Amino acid sequence: MKRLNLLDSAFLLAERRETPMHVGSVNLFTLPSGADEQTFLHQLADGLRSASDFQSPFGERLKTGRLGMLGPMYWERDDTLDIDYHIRHSALPQPGRYRELFALVSRLHGTLLDRNRPLWEMHLIEGLQKRQFAVYSKYHHAAIDGVRSIHLTQSMYSTSARERIHDSPLSVESAKRYRAALGEAPKKEELRNVAEFLKSTYDSGTNVYGALRRLALGWTGRGGDLALPWMGVPHSPINTHVDGARRFVAQSWPFDRVRAVGKALDGTFNDAVLAMSAGALRRYLQEMHGLPKKSLKAMVPVSLRRKGDIDSSNAVGAISADLATNVKDPIKRFESIQASTRAGKAMFEGMAPREVELAMQLMQMPGLFLIPLGLIDRYPPYNTVVSNVPGPRQPMYWNGARLEGIYPASIVSEGVALNITLISYDNNVDFGIVACRRTMPQVQRIIDYMEDALVELEEAVGLRKGKVRASASATKTAKSGAKSRARTRSTAKARPKTKAKSSTTGRSKAKKVSGAKASASTRAKSKTKSGAASKSRTKAKTSASTRSGSKAKSGAPTGSRAKAKSGARARN
Amino acid sequence: MKRLNLLDSAFLLAERRETPMHVGSVNLFTLPSGADEQTFLHQLADGLRSASDFQSPFGERLKTGRLGMLGPMYWERDDTLDIDYHIRHSALPQPGRYRELFALVSRLHGTLLDRNRPLWEMHLIEGLQKRQFAVYSKYHHAAIDGVRSIHLTQSMYSTSARERIHDSPLSVESAKRYRAALGEAPKKEELRNVAEFLKSTYDSGTNVYGALRRLALGWTGRGGDLALPWMGVPHSPINTHVDGARRFVAQSWPFDRVRAVGKALDGTFNDAVLAMSAGALRRYLQEMHGLPKKSLKAMVPVSLRRKGDIDSSNAVGAISADLATNVKDPIKRFESIQASTRAGKAMFEGMAPREVELAMQLMQMPGLFLIPLGLIDRYPPYNTVVSNVPGPRQPMYWNGARLEGIYPASIVSEGVALNITLISYDNNVDFGIVACRRTMPQVQRIIDYMEDALVELEEAVGLRKGKVRASASATKTAKSGAKSRARTRSTAKARPKTKAKSSTTGRSKAKKVSGAKASASTRAKSKTKSGAASKSRTKAKTSASTRSGSKAKSGAPTGSRAKAKSGARARN
Repeated sequence: MKRLNLLDSAFLLAERRETPMHVGSVNLFTLPSGADEQTFLHQLADGLRSASDFQSPFGERLKTGRLGMLGPMYWERDDTLDIDYHIRHSALPQPGRYRELFALVSRLHGTLLDRNRPLWEMHLIEGLQKRQFAVYSKYHHAAIDGVRSIHLTQSMYSTSARERIHDSPLSVESAKRYRAALGEAPKKEELRNVAEFLKSTYDSGTNVYGALRRLALGWTGRGGDLALPWMGVPHSPINTHVDGARRFVAQSWPFDRVRAVGKALDGTFNDAVLAMSAGALRRYLQEMHGLPKKSLKAMVPVSLRRKGDIDSSNAVGAISADLATNVKDPIKRFESIQASTRAGKAMFEGMAPREVELAMQLMQMPGLFLIPLGLIDRYPPYNTVVSNVPGPRQPMYWNGARLEGIYPASIVSEGVALNITLISYDNNVDFGIVACRRTMPQVQRIIDYMEDALVELEEAVGLRKGKVRASASATKTAKSGAKSRARTRSTAKARPKTKAKSSTTGRSKAKKVSGAKASASTRAKSKTKSGAASKSRTKAKTSASTRSGSKAKSGAPTGSRAKAKSGARARN
Repeated sequence: MKRLNLLDSAFLLAERRETPMHVGSVNLFTLPSGADEQTFLHQLADGLRSASDFQSPFGERLKTGRLGMLGPMYWERDDTLDIDYHIRHSALPQPGRYRELFALVSRLHGTLLDRNRPLWEMHLIEGLQKRQFAVYSKYHHAAIDGVRSIHLTQSMYSTSARERIHDSPLSVESAKRYRAALGEAPKKEELRNVAEFLKSTYDSGTNVYGALRRLALGWTGRGGDLALPWMGVPHSPINTHVDGARRFVAQSWPFDRVRAVGKALDGTFNDAVLAMSAGALRRYLQEMHGLPKKSLKAMVPVSLRRKGDIDSSNAVGAISADLATNVKDPIKRFESIQASTRAGKAMFEGMAPREVELAMQLMQMPGLFLIPLGLIDRYPPYNTVVSNVPGPRQPMYWNGARLEGIYPASIVSEGVALNITLISYDNNVDFGIVACRRTMPQVQRIIDYMEDALVELEEAVGLRKGKVRASASATKTAKSGAKSRARTRSTAKARPKTKAKSSTTGRSKAKKVSGAKASASTRAKSKTKSGAASKSRTKAKTSASTRSGSKAKSGAPTGSRAKAKSGARARN
């Protein structure tokens, strides 16, 4: 039996029907040529089921002592493991587009795991167009974290299209094989060492709530020895009570395209990702008339390497990134973001281990501590999460089926209705966005607006010829409320040419601006809901079976505007 | 705003992740000839969504006051109703048999409804073989009961294959139209009047727990003025802790076949249903070596009409039926069951309204009161539920799609891992069985054994020529535990001829017995799990698309042995 540490326990303690604390991913595959979908998927499922000894967390369930959830918790081997419960076949209704996939994943991601069993589910999903299939996996965050889940992904699949895996990818043997293959490179066991060591201070006895209270005192400035750099996070429409239903959308962008923007502005890939997210959020909130005057803050998990830590090759901490959503100019916005991430990392450099520990716990999931104490409304810890998880940079295969994308689905917590997580895989970066269904009914627009924000940056730094997009100024005119969006958009379209400030940094090669492009892009969205529904139905009728109607070359939902339109809209 | 009464509140108070308190049904349809499945289902969904004003409970959500769940609760109109959340498209993985349908319904039935929204979901399920589709609906029991749900079913569909419904079946208009059509016949508003009146005594103030305590005191004999006829319910393997996962199986039998058995033995249709259930449970528990020496008791809701009740045309109470599972002879077993149901009804005849009220609440869902007080282990209130809900006795249609069957999916509660509910519809009786997945991994056998029990009765009373089945005595030899079932079955098969006692009632026309038939029926089940899985896969490969491989004439899962084998086994 392994004892759960404080943070892992906290994910269980904080879990409610409205805020399940599991993380997941949607892995998208293309069937090997000639393979029959049903046969192939059943073979995969049988392979998964075939383990005689399941590795952690697949074969372990939660065990509590006399004090129940308030006492120490353990993982124990589940000798009555009912593997058919965990490995499931699912299917999409016709016409089997990404839209139907996202609708299903939204539902699956919104239900609680059963605590009487090992805390995971894996759904093999058939019925996608273009000979694709998907695997949605769901793990309790108490059992697994982002880094661990990427290692699992890598251990389950192969870099060779020809390799066939004979023992179950969920088996202890598979885990051993993977560890042996890793060799000198990052050792799996070491990944969480720092975290484990740092947390151990608080992980003694049964006094979990005592620890929570001490953390909260620090948070609210009473008795705390932490100078937290992001006090004063603004309220925004996405920081509200969340309910139990989710929306999931996903999209891929070429990794090089995103990195090029970061490079051009002397920043990192992660800075570019944050800038895409910031641009999208600025526009989304502007359209709702909910953009706060102060900048939004994002909780951003980062990789930390500390000198003098002998046992660790890696550790994950978190910084609070200023998204500069109150800055209109895209390049200035980028620079503000960059400055804040540099400061965040610098803060960790100078902190003592105990401070890092506290900061990490507070920043990674402050809701865990603040919600039970009723503090979340007064002290929103951050506005959203933007989490960048490094994944495998070469194509992977599962018994010959090519892995086209790894779309993460993470946690929405009370007061934070949006989570943006991304995984770099092969030549792409795969975004998975999870939102509270009620708070963000139009979350698919974030995907569109991220593309807009990227284009805006590309144009601003001269990576893309063309006009600087005027989306920010166009939407600024929208004054009639979210419900009459269609009307305000035609207003935007009718406006005379708008001038965007060119960058003052000297890096910009932006040209003069017209509002035309932004208008064209928004025009397509101004259909009424019922009109859109009946249109999709008509389309569906004519392309009911698979393979017809595929517009794109790539096997993944990519960042092109046309694809975003057809693929990224889940009416779920 | 409508205030919830005590019983309705209790369903909410007693709900846990492990024991969701919703009821549901699977309605099975055949597409009208020529209709395209996708187009047709989208039209149905659009029709459902089209209401401007949704009738109760579709447009109402739960509202609590300052005391939360411990104070009074109300239904209030949900002005932010998100209808796409409630009306859902789902699909079955290939080959789309009833097995895949049951697996999906098992999962859908095992998740909690979202209390932030109106407490219902409706899934339009495509991908069934033989041009069928299914609708799985799910309502919180606090919002709807069995009688109400049948009225809803009747109001949604038509007795004419030609009729097309133009306003949403979920709309207030539809409810009005239905009530008007009912005319003098049972008025919908009146259906729960007695219950409402009787319960009102306890439904004042916020003292719900006080009422619970008084009820529990009565239950345990301290301060109670109730003589409860089923004190001393035995423990059995199905009366244990349940977890959150479910198994759902369903099957239809011809109504006349079941009624004929009841008639032949001077009993009711309901007595025959109880006898089928009793025979099946006896055998199931024998095979697990878990048949208690005392008879199992079933909670059986019954229709009550009381003279002197002016406001009521109908009221539902419950009796405790002695299933006589400790009686070997099928006719004696039937007679014991019959005697206990007669006594149960007679008890109600002589009770004062207040007593009926108490008894009703205790019998309908004693777990609601006993679980929070920690009494359920010491006083199992009954071993299972067998609930007979009268449904429409003529064929119904939904915009031309024929309703083939209405399979109820009811509640499994802590300590009662099995619920058998049935609805009489058209010429059939449609059984829906819900069980705790962990406690009853082989619940599909109950379906097979019910058919066996019915055949045994038919043979015993001379309705069927043939040999009296020796299932009871054959399985009696199984002594090596549930895990080695395959082996014990071949033992049973190899046994010499067994002699079943012929009935002592004089009604029996049973002939001498051989063990051969029972052996043949069990032989087919003695495959190992992996063998069965690979076989189904091979089959699936050759009959991947719809319409091939359909053995049966009827559109519903019927009681024939061959169909039970192919259709009723959900590996979910």
